[in-house]
Amino acid sequence: AFKGAPQISTDDGWSFKPRGRMQLDIGGVDGPSGLTSSQQAHLGTSAEFRRIYLGFDGSMPGGFGYRVEINVANSDVSINDMYMTYKASRNVNLTLGNQKPNWGLEEMTSDLFTSFMERNSFSQAFGFERRVGLNAEYNGKGVVAQLGVFTDDPNTLGSDTYKSWSVDGRLVAMPKVAGGTLHLGGSAHFRKLNDAIPTVTYQARPFLHTTDLRFVKAGITDATEERGLGLEAAYINGRFHATAESFWQTVRRTGFKDPTFNGGYAEVGYMLTDDTTAYKNGTYDRIKPRHGLDKGGMGAIQVNARYDWLDLTDAGILGGHQQTAGISALWVPTDYVRFILNYGHVWVKDAPVTADGDASYGADALGMRAQFDF
Amino acid sequence: AFKGAPQISTDDGWSFKPRGRMQLDIGGVDGPSGLTSSQQAHLGTSAEFRRIYLGFDGSMPGGFGYRVEINVANSDVSINDMYMTYKASRNVNLTLGNQKPNWGLEEMTSDLFTSFMERNSFSQAFGFERRVGLNAEYNGKGVVAQLGVFTDDPNTLGSDTYKSWSVDGRLVAMPKVAGGTLHLGGSAHFRKLNDAIPTVTYQARPFLHTTDLRFVKAGITDATEERGLGLEAAYINGRFHATAESFWQTVRRTGFKDPTFNGGYAEVGYMLTDDTTAYKNGTYDRIKPRHGLDKGGMGAIQVNARYDWLDLTDAGILGGHQQTAGISALWVPTDYVRFILNYGHVWVKDAPVTADGDASYGADALGMRAQFDF
Amino acid sequence: AFKGAPQISTDDGWSFKPRGRMQLDIGGVDGPSGLTSSQQAHLGTSAEFRRIYLGFDGSMPGGFGYRVEINVANSDVSINDMYMTYKASRNVNLTLGNQKPNWGLEEMTSDLFTSFMERNSFSQAFGFERRVGLNAEYNGKGVVAQLGVFTDDPNTLGSDTYKSWSVDGRLVAMPKVAGGTLHLGGSAHFRKLNDAIPTVTYQARPFLHTTDLRFVKAGITDATEERGLGLEAAYINGRFHATAESFWQTVRRTGFKDPTFNGGYAEVGYMLTDDTTAYKNGTYDRIKPRHGLDKGGMGAIQVNARYDWLDLTDAGILGGHQQTAGISALWVPTDYVRFILNYGHVWVKDAPVTADGDASYGADALGMRAQFDF
Repeated sequence: AFKGAPQISTDDGWSFKPRGRMQLDIGGVDGPSGLTSSQQAHLGTSAEFRRIYLGFDGSMPGGFGYRVEINVANSDVSINDMYMTYKASRNVNLTLGNQKPNWGLEEMTSDLFTSFMERNSFSQAFGFERRVGLNAEYNGKGVVAQLGVFTDDPNTLGSDTYKSWSVDGRLVAMPKVAGGTLHLGGSAHFRKLNDAIPTVTYQARPFLHTTDLRFVKAGITDATEERGLGLEAAYINGRFHATAESFWQTVRRTGFKDPTFNGGYAEVGYMLTDDTTAYKNGTYDRIKPRHGLDKGGMGAIQVNARYDWLDLTDAGILGGHQQTAGISALWVPTDYVRFILNYGHVWVKDAPVTADGDASYGADALGMRAQFDF
Repeated sequence: AFKGAPQISTDDGWSFKPRGRMQLDIGGVDGPSGLTSSQQAHLGTSAEFRRIYLGFDGSMPGGFGYRVEINVANSDVSINDMYMTYKASRNVNLTLGNQKPNWGLEEMTSDLFTSFMERNSFSQAFGFERRVGLNAEYNGKGVVAQLGVFTDDPNTLGSDTYKSWSVDGRLVAMPKVAGGTLHLGGSAHFRKLNDAIPTVTYQARPFLHTTDLRFVKAGITDATEERGLGLEAAYINGRFHATAESFWQTVRRTGFKDPTFNGGYAEVGYMLTDDTTAYKNGTYDRIKPRHGLDKGGMGAIQVNARYDWLDLTDAGILGGHQQTAGISALWVPTDYVRFILNYGHVWVKDAPVTADGDASYGADALGMRAQFDF
Repeated sequence: AFKGAPQISTDDGWSFKPRGRMQLDIGGVDGPSGLTSSQQAHLGTSAEFRRIYLGFDGSMPGGFGYRVEINVANSDVSINDMYMTYKASRNVNLTLGNQKPNWGLEEMTSDLFTSFMERNSFSQAFGFERRVGLNAEYNGKGVVAQLGVFTDDPNTLGSDTYKSWSVDGRLVAMPKVAGGTLHLGGSAHFRKLNDAIPTVTYQARPFLHTTDLRFVKAGITDATEERGLGLEAAYINGRFHATAESFWQTVRRTGFKDPTFNGGYAEVGYMLTDDTTAYKNGTYDRIKPRHGLDKGGMGAIQVNARYDWLDLTDAGILGGHQQTAGISALWVPTDYVRFILNYGHVWVKDAPVTADGDASYGADALGMRAQFDF
């Protein structure tokens, strides 16, 4: 069967499928004129491969499965999903390897299926990433529960002096409400920092990834622990969806007060075409247009609007405050091809990057993405 | 169907094929005795993986297709063909992503099918490479027309401060003449340089890639634009082919005169066995031996001779002049395996690399390649 | 047919199979308290991807075959098996490309099938690795003979100033004795060092790879040649196997005496379950449990014990002496999944890394591995 690429299977439990995706972005960011010329050089229009994933999925007789996937977009290798799985019972799956440590709704949703080119600001800021660990997932009727222990990301683990570890759990209920699905969930994260350098850095780009300049940025020295708490809510009904998340990240420090940072966003979206927003088991899923180009139609179109905030100032740490208002249009001509056009306006306040001495200013960003996967 | 690797297809437009190639070279370069010992250390006999490509090709219902391919020969990742395609009409294809910006005949010919281990000198010197862009190709009866806009190569795009862009077009006519195919074409290239460092470097190795020493080399500072013009002609008839190309590259500079550099080559080739030289749609193609090892035969043998020149001296830039006379023998035992043996004599004049003070000298290079692909 | 991944074949000689493997390790090493704090930072508990291989195997009509495989475990690319093969006759295979230069029994055995997480100490110490070369293998009735010429590893070949080469041969007899297989063999290695830096470094980790600290280490300057001699013996009979190897490495130096270093190990192993130890053509092979999880059983369990020594002190080179006693338990739930638990005690004497001035001390290491392949 073709699921983008051919999936080869047997009756006794073998299966195998190649995996790949390409996201090619072009974006323009316009900042305040008071920035230095070296800061300005990071703005303007530029293009990049945002993600290029290559890998394989498979399953084996006896309940084992695996995914191996690398990201080569930056002309190097970063290890993406890289794990083996074991189906311990009808509802329980164990996953050992590099994977997402049960972050919130948008971070757990595949980057193939997000409403904007980039995820919300707190997902960037608070260091959400894949880490090596052992995770258990319970998939019940209307509920998903996830709990795992994790070390660090594979690149960091390449140095044997990095020994941080964490416990990360997430719980989601998905009751049917008024003909739609209500998503209510939360996640909690405890991380013991045992790295060679006890500093964590929280920062976020302005709306797009094509620039490497960050207006807001907090470097927290003498950090010993991270504690995160996320709340997530959504409602999906046919063409319509609404999502809201917020996340609080506390850093324990030796000799200093412990700062707590917060971010969040609220979003509404609507399919202009006669299509339905896709949601499954606690995350958004693949939109499959009813009348795609492959069927002589024009594909699916979704429009979205979002407000996003990120506060990186607390307890003497002056990382700044960033708000973003964004709109996006998604064109999904066939199941495995997607184009995104989005625009965001960014306001920063008390930012460590100042424009001619002014720490409060605005910026505009317009971006496009072309994407396919298999 | 097996095309080196299995191609899995369905009637409704899905297809998928793994891709790979390995080129393993060994070469010896003998230069003048007057070079310094650190220059001499780059000469002599050495081996290398010239190219190791891995990737996938595919097509999807609705007219979309893709290629993802990386080169890992240097023990890192460089992004090779990496694009999605859309068949806009029977004759027109659009390609978005990393691809060749419509260079000349030999550069557009796959490195699997070149007559010598390395392409001509101007292809190296004038920075021919794949770049990220949007290209349109018209494939008509006896004519190919290509036009696109491009940014930079993926690795350079990893830095958001590099913002060069170009427009590149190529036109080829392929009339049938005297039982063979005549190839007449040209390409034009305009590139606006907007990089952090406004310097371009033009250089070429002596005949082989196994050495990293270049005798001729021009560094042009304060560069603002590149303008390229290429002319290409070939005649292919059964066992015989002849090719000639020339390319003029002009660099616009601020505060200096604009230099124009030139390179070119002329080549003849002949199949010693009862086989035909392969050409298709504006490039040379895969030689498929009539009596391959797989059919109990010995495969195809082609011999080629070439004269190549490169002039990197103009308008106060003293990059030197290099001429190469080369002969090669290709053994193609089966469709997907190839061996190359070639020898070149190189003369340089007014070279920036001098041999005991002498800027004019000769060098000899003998190389072998083993290659397979799928 | 599924061999971990699907192997697609045709009657006329085409075949193709994806390849992959993941080894995820966690290990703890406890050293003497007298080490410096920066040395201690390398010890303790840490996790890592030990190996992540991705690639393809294939064969083509006409007797050609190939393997392309990269290792991305360190978040970069290292080239693994990367070669083409030619079946010159019923018993003789030629291999051209990156491959193992006919090292000893355990090094020639796939890392998927070793008895402990890591191979013996001399395999690490004396620079056993894959190198680019041309090898011939004769596979007769009860005998394997291998001989090849090699240059360097692909990463080193990336610099054109490294021009070492070697001749490496190995001979193994495998007579049937008392219902089992006796393995008797030896290998000889001559290497001419022609690199830019004429220094070789011999060192070994303490039992596990999760630490980068080495207690024993010899740096030999002014090296011109390496000469290696290995002896190998094993007996495999049903559930039981015993293995012993030793290797002598001599370095020729200009202006100094030529040191000879030695290492070796002896091991016994036994399958606790009703399974047989797997051996084939001069190396250990894949254990296929009779009653795997896929058949409702519990898989195969093997226990092993080993003594290992490495002596890096000779002729004025003071690299130290390391002994290791290790035990391991292997659980093989299905053919393509394996878990290893092993423990080793390490003694060093006259080590260059001292603990509070003491050059003789002990260390303990406990490690676990989870592994799958396809």
